[in-house]
Amino acid sequence: MSAIQKNVEAASEAYSSSFSQGHLALPPAKKYLVLTCMDARIDPAQAFGIRLGDAHVIRNAGASAQDALRSVIISQQLVGTQEIVLVKHTGCGMLTFKNEDAYGLVDKNLGSEAAAELKSRGLDFLPFPQLEDAVKDDVECLKNTKLVPDSVAISGWIYEVETGKTRRVV
Amino acid sequence: MSAIQKNVEAASEAYSSSFSQGHLALPPAKKYLVLTCMDARIDPAQAFGIRLGDAHVIRNAGASAQDALRSVIISQQLVGTQEIVLVKHTGCGMLTFKNEDAYGLVDKNLGSEAAAELKSRGLDFLPFPQLEDAVKDDVECLKNTKLVPDSVAISGWIYEVETGKTRRVV
Repeated sequence: MSAIQKNVEAASEAYSSSFSQGHLALPPAKKYLVLTCMDARIDPAQAFGIRLGDAHVIRNAGASAQDALRSVIISQQLVGTQEIVLVKHTGCGMLTFKNEDAYGLVDKNLGSEAAAELKSRGLDFLPFPQLEDAVKDDVECLKNTKLVPDSVAISGWIYEVETGKTRRVV
Repeated sequence: MSAIQKNVEAASEAYSSSFSQGHLALPPAKKYLVLTCMDARIDPAQAFGIRLGDAHVIRNAGASAQDALRSVIISQQLVGTQEIVLVKHTGCGMLTFKNEDAYGLVDKNLGSEAAAELKSRGLDFLPFPQLEDAVKDDVECLKNTKLVPDSVAISGWIYEVETGKTRRVV
């Protein structure tokens, strides 16, 4: 067992020994979802004030709305969430590369078979060159798709990894 | 401003006022990623023992490996993570419906234009009928793609929303 796997087991033992939230229902109590980045420096529960059971939390590289659409539709249509809080962050890795860079890395590091698989999947890594614009674009993306009804409130924010602050953009 | 947006602002003020982690670097210090579900009853940091800055955290509906592949490749190729901890959970919403149910809901609730957009995107909601099998299948999915090298350690787990325990499956 790896050190990381041992850490999961130790954390689970400690967490479950004082766990008292086994009664919570599947639907988020506050009927909202938070979409943010996978970045290691973000703790959504603490930074954005999400109590256990209150909200769905979707995380991917860059807090991409396009990449999250499947989960957003499930959250909204099957579980009934009515508000979306989208949070990107300063220092995001998605600001540092382009699709062709990622395709080049896969070819160089993983070889031609991997590069061929990537090409056949037609994967878009969805990097972005400017942070505030990306927040606005992704909020627009969610507002423009017919798959999210107009009744869903959507706000866009930036979390500052340097200060721990979250500020509204749109 | 909605009550949920006010809550984000209040949480941000409290969190940032005692924030002392502004020095953390972009790459996860422990070079691993956790892939888990968006379910509101999971707090990955607490339940799986993830300290701020230690790991990428990817979350989507069902902790789907297929849906997470874009983020996994970025985490591995661009940021250098070397281990994946995949955690699905008891009581998952993905056990409760099939693709045709979700397509039917979109048509009924959002109308024919939305249904047409959904069809044109060819979205697979990736539900699964059995929990342990789904953990094994998703670990296999990550092991079988050439886009994740064999050097990456991958384990599969189930978090119990009733007890707060996380147990290893594969």
